[in-house]
Amino acid sequence: MPSYTAPVKDMQFLLHDMLKVTEAGVPGYADLEREFTEAVLGEAAKLAQDVLAPLNAVGDREGCRLENGIVYTPTGFKAAFEALKEGGWNGIDLPEAYGGQNLPYVMGTLVGEVLCSANMAFNMYQGLTHGAINAILAAGSEEQKALYLPKMVSLEWTGTMNLTEPHCGTDLGLIRTRAEPQADGSYKITGQKIFISAGDHDLAENIIHLVLAKAPGGGEGTKGISLFIVPKVLVNEDGTLGARNSLSVGKIEEKMGIHGNATCVMNYDGATGYLVGDLHKGLKAMFVMMNEARLGVGLQGYAQAEAAYQNALAYAKDRLQGRAVTGVQNPGGNADPLIVHPDIRRNLMDQKSFIEGARAFTLWGAHLIDRAHRLGDAQAEGLISLLTPVIKGFQTDIGFAMTVQAQQVYGGHGYIEEWGMSQFARDARIAMIYEGANGVQALDLVGRKLAAEGGKPAMAFFEMVKSFIKENEGDEALKAPFLDPLKAASKDLQTAMMYFMQQGMKNPNAALAGSSDFMHLFGHVCLGLMWAMMAKTSARALAEGTADATFHETKLATGRYYMARHLPATGMHLARIQSGAEPVMALTADQF
Amino acid sequence: MPSYTAPVKDMQFLLHDMLKVTEAGVPGYADLEREFTEAVLGEAAKLAQDVLAPLNAVGDREGCRLENGIVYTPTGFKAAFEALKEGGWNGIDLPEAYGGQNLPYVMGTLVGEVLCSANMAFNMYQGLTHGAINAILAAGSEEQKALYLPKMVSLEWTGTMNLTEPHCGTDLGLIRTRAEPQADGSYKITGQKIFISAGDHDLAENIIHLVLAKAPGGGEGTKGISLFIVPKVLVNEDGTLGARNSLSVGKIEEKMGIHGNATCVMNYDGATGYLVGDLHKGLKAMFVMMNEARLGVGLQGYAQAEAAYQNALAYAKDRLQGRAVTGVQNPGGNADPLIVHPDIRRNLMDQKSFIEGARAFTLWGAHLIDRAHRLGDAQAEGLISLLTPVIKGFQTDIGFAMTVQAQQVYGGHGYIEEWGMSQFARDARIAMIYEGANGVQALDLVGRKLAAEGGKPAMAFFEMVKSFIKENEGDEALKAPFLDPLKAASKDLQTAMMYFMQQGMKNPNAALAGSSDFMHLFGHVCLGLMWAMMAKTSARALAEGTADATFHETKLATGRYYMARHLPATGMHLARIQSGAEPVMALTADQF
Repeated sequence: MPSYTAPVKDMQFLLHDMLKVTEAGVPGYADLEREFTEAVLGEAAKLAQDVLAPLNAVGDREGCRLENGIVYTPTGFKAAFEALKEGGWNGIDLPEAYGGQNLPYVMGTLVGEVLCSANMAFNMYQGLTHGAINAILAAGSEEQKALYLPKMVSLEWTGTMNLTEPHCGTDLGLIRTRAEPQADGSYKITGQKIFISAGDHDLAENIIHLVLAKAPGGGEGTKGISLFIVPKVLVNEDGTLGARNSLSVGKIEEKMGIHGNATCVMNYDGATGYLVGDLHKGLKAMFVMMNEARLGVGLQGYAQAEAAYQNALAYAKDRLQGRAVTGVQNPGGNADPLIVHPDIRRNLMDQKSFIEGARAFTLWGAHLIDRAHRLGDAQAEGLISLLTPVIKGFQTDIGFAMTVQAQQVYGGHGYIEEWGMSQFARDARIAMIYEGANGVQALDLVGRKLAAEGGKPAMAFFEMVKSFIKENEGDEALKAPFLDPLKAASKDLQTAMMYFMQQGMKNPNAALAGSSDFMHLFGHVCLGLMWAMMAKTSARALAEGTADATFHETKLATGRYYMARHLPATGMHLARIQSGAEPVMALTADQF
Repeated sequence: MPSYTAPVKDMQFLLHDMLKVTEAGVPGYADLEREFTEAVLGEAAKLAQDVLAPLNAVGDREGCRLENGIVYTPTGFKAAFEALKEGGWNGIDLPEAYGGQNLPYVMGTLVGEVLCSANMAFNMYQGLTHGAINAILAAGSEEQKALYLPKMVSLEWTGTMNLTEPHCGTDLGLIRTRAEPQADGSYKITGQKIFISAGDHDLAENIIHLVLAKAPGGGEGTKGISLFIVPKVLVNEDGTLGARNSLSVGKIEEKMGIHGNATCVMNYDGATGYLVGDLHKGLKAMFVMMNEARLGVGLQGYAQAEAAYQNALAYAKDRLQGRAVTGVQNPGGNADPLIVHPDIRRNLMDQKSFIEGARAFTLWGAHLIDRAHRLGDAQAEGLISLLTPVIKGFQTDIGFAMTVQAQQVYGGHGYIEEWGMSQFARDARIAMIYEGANGVQALDLVGRKLAAEGGKPAMAFFEMVKSFIKENEGDEALKAPFLDPLKAASKDLQTAMMYFMQQGMKNPNAALAGSSDFMHLFGHVCLGLMWAMMAKTSARALAEGTADATFHETKLATGRYYMARHLPATGMHLARIQSGAEPVMALTADQF
């Protein structure tokens, strides 16, 4: 069975050596002393390693079951959920007013990674709740916040997001679920929603569904959509539970992975719902929630890769097979461990260098969110808005590919469920799809985010890369291995953007045909920047003298690998982009 | 549920327009008239579409079960196997002397694709038998051939390959299964074999296991290995069945996919076995079988992609979601079909252009085998030996990636088992692992095949590419879209090979660190060459006037896509290769 150890040391490096959080001037960051964050991450690690990780395979094997309208989660999930509640983990970065601890988002992100690596399906029960809380925080009334949030923050109640219907996912304008206004100000919600993660379960006494529906008078398409709170059990004004609402679970879907999470078909039959935010402006409220949820999904991409990598690495050190081409390495055994073989190394280094880069990128993104929320930093807000589809789309595509590579290290054993490597790949696969399939992320990036604010955030990004290179190019240790490839990759990105700008007006298909490639090109440049920043940090630590030279030398070597072997992808993506719309659009639909 | 239609038209194009088989001068090819191959493929298509494809999901859902030592296959498999037998499909390319039809290997390959696309797990019962027959044909005695082959060709009996043991897969020198010589010339085989596909089942009255084991006196490592026939039920000299042999199924493995095929742990407890070929030369006999089996696995890679693609395409034409950016395409509906969106097209064209290129490459490889076997063409034999790891490794890596892309077209529905797209990805995943994991293919290519015969086959390949370009570069329709990118890609491949030659002697790790990239670089050049050849064929058909201009125009547009959007990967692979061993080998094992 796979095991998991939280990478606390790497997280501490990012917080304290790279981001230097205590000196960053963000409200709340001054409290993030090294010992404090170590203690928090250490406690999360204990929960993840001792309680959640051992249940990961159990959840996959057993799945959830629906019996007489009640959804039962796998063996052990209830007790684990109690442990999660007791630790107060859900509220770590939520407002104190509702029972949270109000720690910065960077801390919520790192804790989220640890829990997700240990057991993604389990952690989604909390993750969806967190998202629903954010939507209510952003758009709910004070009464709604007071009524629902304290019990959601404490996980006595959980939450869900209800967007998709059988005939529409991305195109929410097609939603058919109706909301009929009632005399008392509430609505009757009727319709079917599908793919509702954590849609029902036995972990909490109530579930607060956030449901998109069309109320009369809003017009066609997305304009008519409103957002509603639809509790599984109605909540009295004093916060006690009332009658069961008119909603039920149609079925639990059989999925490729995340079997431990109940993905439900939800039927709303005149269920009582309460409007959240403005009528007919539901999509806006939902997108507040979606944006942070997308960051969380981008995190899942590398968090699953991390868990898979740890096990592939252990196997590569343990399994004896063949001899090193340069001479016997394990003379006491009848073969050398897999890790001596260059192609196994290539496989492992691909994973390691991606994961550490993605962790840095995600944490840096969380830091931008902290700056936006806690400092009102408009540039940070623009940047994270631009980068969110990159974090989601790029990191889940590559994260999944890395779980497949990790599985490959095991040879035939990787295909056998008993070893657990298949589960990482099957679980990670969903992250490329939900919260907006990655093609939609690419469309969001190219069709909307690039041009947002007249292109200011994109310009700010390039400016940042440029000035980082300029500031550091006197440093010979950084220049050839890090800054030169970063400069070349960034130039590819700018050339691609220029191509879109030239083409975009007269031929929007030319930009959209290259959108997925652009997202990947952008992702590579971002991770290249992160590696350059980490390399600078480690080079300085080594120059100044450090007690842990091995850690920093390893960091530098891993970064050199990323720059030498991942970054060359930017040229390929650029070439594809520049081939334009013609090859992509040449066939009529009938010709396929 | 997914459906499948055999791409007979594309197969006919390859046989008759591109390869021009009837004029190729290979014994047996003259009979492959257009009407004849159409009839054969049409019959295979019927079996595949009507009988096998509907059982694909059944096999996945039910799997195989072991009860009281007996393995039961999924509902419907027995009847389908009878239909397969009755059609004589297993013997299509096997010798008439043993009941086969002796058709060329190109025909066996196309029929194999059709059956595999329809139901990979089912078709493996036959595929393994086919492999075992080839090993006995290559190394067995005349008595063994006469005793076993007729019933194996007719599928009254099936076959297996037993190589892997719990502690060794790739490194067969570590095998522990023992063979003790008996007074009557037979051996007693004792040991455990794992991952035995089609290891046991209820489809045939006997199973002929081919088992690698160590007989006394052979020395250490792979030198001591011999190959044995170990029948499930002993066969009397007159061909009737005798006593049950001392072997049993330990368990059926729970796998990520191909659930319809029983992957068994086999226990041999002093089972009676008969030496095949020379004592202590078992590996050589097994590799005869492995080489063609690897071609068959390379075929599985694109055959699963084909099945997945057909369904993704149908979904993209059917599912209404969003509007085309260039204006409404489906004014009668409330949204346009997915296929109007450039990123969906990009996804579909990736698949289509890879699959058609891979089909051409595999068929061309089969043609080389026919030339080697039927004409004694040594150059063809050298070439296919060089290209086999490319066909296996490259096509299964990309084939799997394409099933994942096909799944992505479905959005959330792609993750739900009911829609069947997950199965294509889960089934295709094994092809990257078995018959030598793809890392081993890359090692075989770079460490052995490149240098074989002093590099003659590699030189012959480059010569072929060069002369094709030279012969056709006067043709403007081919030059810019096909020949120029092929030339550039081929130059990248030559540069990589030069790098290996310069580095190889003093630093073998530098070549091996780039081995997987080299395999992919080579694969791209091969498919680029195939597309150039297909483009020439279609351009000529259009110039000469054809009744099916749409087919040939589609072929040309699909080829342009491959050249414009797949081939730029060669530059990336070359850059990675040229970064050498340092980034890959920099860390000590402890530093990971």
